[in-house]
Amino acid sequence: MSRYPHPTLQDLPEDIRARILEVQEKSGFIPNVFLALARRPAEWRAFFAYHDALMVPESTGRSSSLSKGDREMIVTATSAANQCLYCVVAHGAILRIYEKKPLVADQVAVNHRKADISPRQRAMLDFALKVCQRSHEIEEADFAALHAHGFDDEDIWDIAAITAFFGLSNRMASFSDMMPNPEFYLLGRVPKQRNP
Amino acid sequence: MSRYPHPTLQDLPEDIRARILEVQEKSGFIPNVFLALARRPAEWRAFFAYHDALMVPESTGRSSSLSKGDREMIVTATSAANQCLYCVVAHGAILRIYEKKPLVADQVAVNHRKADISPRQRAMLDFALKVCQRSHEIEEADFAALHAHGFDDEDIWDIAAITAFFGLSNRMASFSDMMPNPEFYLLGRVPKQRNP
Amino acid sequence: MSRYPHPTLQDLPEDIRARILEVQEKSGFIPNVFLALARRPAEWRAFFAYHDALMVPESTGRSSSLSKGDREMIVTATSAANQCLYCVVAHGAILRIYEKKPLVADQVAVNHRKADISPRQRAMLDFALKVCQRSHEIEEADFAALHAHGFDDEDIWDIAAITAFFGLSNRMASFSDMMPNPEFYLLGRVPKQRNP
Amino acid sequence: MSRYPHPTLQDLPEDIRARILEVQEKSGFIPNVFLALARRPAEWRAFFAYHDALMVPESTGRSSSLSKGDREMIVTATSAANQCLYCVVAHGAILRIYEKKPLVADQVAVNHRKADISPRQRAMLDFALKVCQRSHEIEEADFAALHAHGFDDEDIWDIAAITAFFGLSNRMASFSDMMPNPEFYLLGRVPKQRNP
Amino acid sequence: MSRYPHPTLQDLPEDIRARILEVQEKSGFIPNVFLALARRPAEWRAFFAYHDALMVPESTGRSSSLSKGDREMIVTATSAANQCLYCVVAHGAILRIYEKKPLVADQVAVNHRKADISPRQRAMLDFALKVCQRSHEIEEADFAALHAHGFDDEDIWDIAAITAFFGLSNRMASFSDMMPNPEFYLLGRVPKQRNP
Amino acid sequence: MSRYPHPTLQDLPEDIRARILEVQEKSGFIPNVFLALARRPAEWRAFFAYHDALMVPESTGRSSSLSKGDREMIVTATSAANQCLYCVVAHGAILRIYEKKPLVADQVAVNHRKADISPRQRAMLDFALKVCQRSHEIEEADFAALHAHGFDDEDIWDIAAITAFFGLSNRMASFSDMMPNPEFYLLGRVPKQRNP
Repeated sequence: MSRYPHPTLQDLPEDIRARILEVQEKSGFIPNVFLALARRPAEWRAFFAYHDALMVPESTGRSSSLSKGDREMIVTATSAANQCLYCVVAHGAILRIYEKKPLVADQVAVNHRKADISPRQRAMLDFALKVCQRSHEIEEADFAALHAHGFDDEDIWDIAAITAFFGLSNRMASFSDMMPNPEFYLLGRVPKQRNP
Repeated sequence: MSRYPHPTLQDLPEDIRARILEVQEKSGFIPNVFLALARRPAEWRAFFAYHDALMVPESTGRSSSLSKGDREMIVTATSAANQCLYCVVAHGAILRIYEKKPLVADQVAVNHRKADISPRQRAMLDFALKVCQRSHEIEEADFAALHAHGFDDEDIWDIAAITAFFGLSNRMASFSDMMPNPEFYLLGRVPKQRNP
Repeated sequence: MSRYPHPTLQDLPEDIRARILEVQEKSGFIPNVFLALARRPAEWRAFFAYHDALMVPESTGRSSSLSKGDREMIVTATSAANQCLYCVVAHGAILRIYEKKPLVADQVAVNHRKADISPRQRAMLDFALKVCQRSHEIEEADFAALHAHGFDDEDIWDIAAITAFFGLSNRMASFSDMMPNPEFYLLGRVPKQRNP
Repeated sequence: MSRYPHPTLQDLPEDIRARILEVQEKSGFIPNVFLALARRPAEWRAFFAYHDALMVPESTGRSSSLSKGDREMIVTATSAANQCLYCVVAHGAILRIYEKKPLVADQVAVNHRKADISPRQRAMLDFALKVCQRSHEIEEADFAALHAHGFDDEDIWDIAAITAFFGLSNRMASFSDMMPNPEFYLLGRVPKQRNP
Repeated sequence: MSRYPHPTLQDLPEDIRARILEVQEKSGFIPNVFLALARRPAEWRAFFAYHDALMVPESTGRSSSLSKGDREMIVTATSAANQCLYCVVAHGAILRIYEKKPLVADQVAVNHRKADISPRQRAMLDFALKVCQRSHEIEEADFAALHAHGFDDEDIWDIAAITAFFGLSNRMASFSDMMPNPEFYLLGRVPKQRNP
Repeated sequence: MSRYPHPTLQDLPEDIRARILEVQEKSGFIPNVFLALARRPAEWRAFFAYHDALMVPESTGRSSSLSKGDREMIVTATSAANQCLYCVVAHGAILRIYEKKPLVADQVAVNHRKADISPRQRAMLDFALKVCQRSHEIEEADFAALHAHGFDDEDIWDIAAITAFFGLSNRMASFSDMMPNPEFYLLGRVPKQRNP
């Protein structure tokens, strides 16, 4: 499906193969992004290092006031604005799981204004979508709107950086026809034991 | 000027400080992006690893048919589309130097259709701007247009990935008010010995 | 949730109540659109008469070369373009059921260019989205593109009219905060016996 | 002119022919929309039932605080935003007649901000145009702006529903090349006896 | 109505007053643009000198293959794209008179694709609207499309320059609330003797 | 480079040649716009009369509270919004000289929100860009925002008229491939004696 053929696991450098096997172990399948980008190991390593620094901040010894669900919500909303199928489906799944809300990903992807989320999350997504679509217009008032919901400047950096990073991811996925694994579509929609 | 204070060199991890000193040695000044991102070392490392993998492919043992000038031209054109002051000014400077054309950066930034560039570069920028602004609409015909100018699918990956990566960079710079160093504005416009 | 309170079933005119009970019998729940619009019986009757004329053409003694799945696919794609949560979720569910493809609704809603659909369906959606967003620019070439896929002018009327009608529906749902029933989100994603 | 041939009056079902003859009697000509849609009687009936429910609310036993002129003004402004020639010309004519203002239709169609209308009507059109173009962004503040001018939620439903219904009409007219009758262009611009 | 008060005729420089009286003599009224701009005589003189050079080329000893009707059609279409009430109404009137078509101005203003004009005029308006809205994208193919209809490069200069000049005029009229004289609305719609 | 050949100086009418020689004397070169437009003397005269009335108000006996730098800043910002290479480069040069700020033109052209300018100038550019891109939406609040910075209605006329006039200039330059003289690119970036 993807325009660029995926490498086989055995042809990959050891560090990349190890991480991929670990993900497969945990998820039950290998998300396509891990294979699609692996054809260029240096880019793969940079991509996942960046990903982890933003999405798993504790892996870098940093804490963050954004929950795991908040982070995935940002990814889902901005990826929908960029019409990226891979990221909406894959991160929508993770969002459902983290937020324990089977409906929230579809809501956030179609129109975040109608989603069953907190006012704090609504403000977070308004900012993320502005960074996504009109980052050159961000100004003081945008920071003030987030401060009013208790976000500090480190949190705002997180929101902007996650948006910016997945804007990169969205463009890579769309241009190369990266397709979401079928497993993602159902994850988090039904109680876990019912998943294969 | 930047919203987020820059760390001081001595507070930085050794690897980051070493790279920054190397750049300073070579350029005569420290481009602000090196300091602005260094407040988060893990993100800094991922950013520059990604940067190098795309902009200095030989550093990863990969060759590319895109010249250094081609690469900077993509950055300048797409950063202008994103209205990112830092990247237009900084990468416009490098573009002028690599292409040895003092006028080309301004031309590409204002309207690439009027720039004094080759038809191959024009096609490259048309594609890059589509990835930048409407990546979800990329389709077979866009690849065909580049193939007609001799680009292969690896080159196209390069064009798309550079565009995607600097889309990330543009958003980080704009949201955080990262300002280009004054030195960049003049670089490549006058013969080198006339620069301070 | 909706801004406008739903009437109770017993307060509704007999014809409306009968239809609603029939739908409830068949679906296991009452889709909110039936109740949300029922507060104005004359509009309700016109809305569902129009709906049936377009979506159930055999009810008016007319046949159509568009399948039930084709029709719902048009609704899902154009409702996503209008960012209408109710219609994307409700009609996405029906689309999954009719097409027997658990993944197709999400694909069509996020980016129909990436969806696993036939070239004929792709052309159908291209036309529908143009009617949805730029109907004033429709011209002869747009008809020709559909003729090339075997659609005749009656089919094209169907595509345009379904798009136009659900454009109405999208605006009514969005302005009034009509929310999709939770049941819709999962319909057609899992084998039927697993649904409540 | 229209892409789809008009049926002849004698071929139409009795109820449709009767309504059309009544309109002809009253107007002196048959507005093309009545013939253009009549080729599909079920859609015709639903269309005019919906039309009457919104534009002639007293026909359904409902009163409304929107005047006839207000209603036609909404149609003219939103149809202009959709660049629908038929509806701008036909409903602009009716607007001139109801408002007894020969200039108002052109003003509202070109730029409602410059029209000689009341502040209440200006607010009404601002809302209608938002429903027309960005219904997914409607929120509480939009309702509040109308409440400040004395509109209640039933009036707002009227404004939104008229906008939504004529959005359907606009798309049908544009895609099918429905052309306004020449008579409409002059109606309401000159004292009545001077019309042919 | 206008934000900036009109000067009185007797306060105007002799050359300006003379021209205005001549126009009044010919038209039966003074179009507001003549008074609105006269508060700054130097700008007035430049504006009308430019106007005459483009709209009355024979006044400068130049002939043109664009008819008077063609010229006014360009003004009407592009002023509608800019939503300029003054120019659509005033130049729509002149267009009706020159083309001897009472309906053409409304058609061109609402959607030139539906207007009863020649294919040559359609191509002319397509080009004018591109100059109006996306002049930076004009390229060789746009010239070729006009050449195919018999326009030469001098004609194309005329089309572009008229579009550019009235883009100036549109912005001056809109920002300053310049209102069209009531007389314009009816001109060219009814046989001349019926005008007051 | 330009699509339309430039006339030679000796073929030009005396008044035009004299002005051009005067400019050449002063600048050291003939800016291309003087030659590009001279092929049509009547338009040339109107263009430069208008230009002078707005950009050199004292030439018409009028003073203005806008500085020379303010005026060129408006031209640079709006020409960048119109992606006009000639005007961004030529007027950016003059802006640098008048403001004595070598960096300001690039800042204003890429994103005026990041430019090192006064809050008064920022408000001036916000208004100019709205006149440039959405003049039909200008309303009372836009005037009030400028009044708050000390601009009066005459100043606002200046801002709007300069924007409108250079919108004309931008379209003429872009459609005709008018290229900026190479000299402009460096002007005002380096101390004057270093210019050739």
